[in-house]
Amino acid sequence: MIDAAPRRIAFLGFGLIAGSIARALAEPSGDRLALVAWSPSGAGPRAALADRILDAAAADPAAAIEGADLVVIAAPPLETIDLIARLGGPLRGALAPDVVVTDVASTKAAVLAEADAVGVRFVGGHPMAGREVVGYAGSVADLFVDRPWVVVPGAAADDAAIRRVEWLARSTGARPVSMDATVHDAAAAAVSHLPLVLAVALVEAVVGGDAERPGWPVAAGLAASGWRDMTRLARGDARMGAGIAATNAPALLAAVGEVRAALDAWIADLEQAGGPDPERLEARLRRARERLERAPTTRS
Amino acid sequence: MIDAAPRRIAFLGFGLIAGSIARALAEPSGDRLALVAWSPSGAGPRAALADRILDAAAADPAAAIEGADLVVIAAPPLETIDLIARLGGPLRGALAPDVVVTDVASTKAAVLAEADAVGVRFVGGHPMAGREVVGYAGSVADLFVDRPWVVVPGAAADDAAIRRVEWLARSTGARPVSMDATVHDAAAAAVSHLPLVLAVALVEAVVGGDAERPGWPVAAGLAASGWRDMTRLARGDARMGAGIAATNAPALLAAVGEVRAALDAWIADLEQAGGPDPERLEARLRRARERLERAPTTRS
Repeated sequence: MIDAAPRRIAFLGFGLIAGSIARALAEPSGDRLALVAWSPSGAGPRAALADRILDAAAADPAAAIEGADLVVIAAPPLETIDLIARLGGPLRGALAPDVVVTDVASTKAAVLAEADAVGVRFVGGHPMAGREVVGYAGSVADLFVDRPWVVVPGAAADDAAIRRVEWLARSTGARPVSMDATVHDAAAAAVSHLPLVLAVALVEAVVGGDAERPGWPVAAGLAASGWRDMTRLARGDARMGAGIAATNAPALLAAVGEVRAALDAWIADLEQAGGPDPERLEARLRRARERLERAPTTRS
Repeated sequence: MIDAAPRRIAFLGFGLIAGSIARALAEPSGDRLALVAWSPSGAGPRAALADRILDAAAADPAAAIEGADLVVIAAPPLETIDLIARLGGPLRGALAPDVVVTDVASTKAAVLAEADAVGVRFVGGHPMAGREVVGYAGSVADLFVDRPWVVVPGAAADDAAIRRVEWLARSTGARPVSMDATVHDAAAAAVSHLPLVLAVALVEAVVGGDAERPGWPVAAGLAASGWRDMTRLARGDARMGAGIAATNAPALLAAVGEVRAALDAWIADLEQAGGPDPERLEARLRRARERLERAPTTRS
């Protein structure tokens, strides 16, 4: 739909995700689509301006959003909520009348609640893609190709607003997927936020929490690819992780409770009188593998 | 040490690990070192014979070990223990007088206990390397390069026996590391066996155990690289995993208990009255990342 396309996009926050969106949009856009960004440090926008990915680097959010018909908030969850509050408050006057606001945060219910509370014309988004690196320096134009991009309209969003955010998703190569915020948050807790907590809990159990574990130096010498894969998420951005856990606590709590129950069943199997039953353990491992193999293929 | 080098090596079991050892040895050995293998199916030895990696594929264990001065048991833990019992029993007559027996199983205390009980001249081994693929078809000559290879001498092992197993490790490019069986098993539980149980528990909690979880189809559609990495170990060989858990139950139980305690602390943080404290969560995530970053670098 031609009329869905924005003419000027403002990014508030400009790291890996916003940078990758801008790179994907910059390639075919020519002169018709203007891209402007602001970030707290200003480093990402300055670099992208030098790279000719952006048309302007703004000194503050008000300058960035001026004249924009699509505002993309690209910040951790708590900062996203704060920016929405500012767009509904002190920054409201700088918003164009026909503007649509969207975001890319990993949780949606708390973000939508804020947008609805302040009455912004908001359509939440969550592109399901990422890389191990952070910041604009890690951005790539094909990050979203063939990935789902969850779209969650707010109460004040009309069809035209939804179409504009779907246009954004499709323009990066992603597949827009409409979803209820609560359904999204439960699903993201299961396949994304719970794995993060497990990776951190594994580090805390093996490397240590307040103090390093006495067995760690010897164990570290034996660590191989399994350990590396299972702890990679614990190397991620701490502020982002904290915002995810803080804004998706009920769904995450339920998911952590399910893993705890599964671990209790493992403890029961391992504690069995006379030693664990290898046939029972093998059946349990085989069942998990079969469940995974039946699952839809995932990709990075 | 020249006198440490064997003249004839017999592999009992011939999958990824034995195949990779044989490939590493076959390259520079010329005619001086003979390699022979037996496996239950015979498929790996036949393929390696065709590849000129082996000098002979044996029809049974007795034929394989005849004249060998180094026997490498390369089977899952429970099958390794069973083969040691047979080498100390019905197969004892087929062993050469100067033979040294070693293994590559992921747990060491239970394996050593069997070797000591039957009085085999045994030096346990555990090369800390692996790949996601199984079987001889996945074997590569450089699998062990620069990796630790844990060496655990049995009660009947003399210095010459230890040197022969260290020769084996070095000949594949690995670094022999002497270690007590109990210390090894605790370290392997922490960085290898616990991650396996966590990956399976994650699948059980999210995909399902006896029945598929209702939320799984939607969640599967959002799964990305984090989910894939955190569940990769659950796709491994079920028989191997069961043998590991069955023969390392006490150390694994202790490790699972530590993760359970860490998860209980996460539940407490998430359940906090008035909602989780983002600063506290961020500090916790930052601490885990810093502990990982201080750790020795791991590689696959």
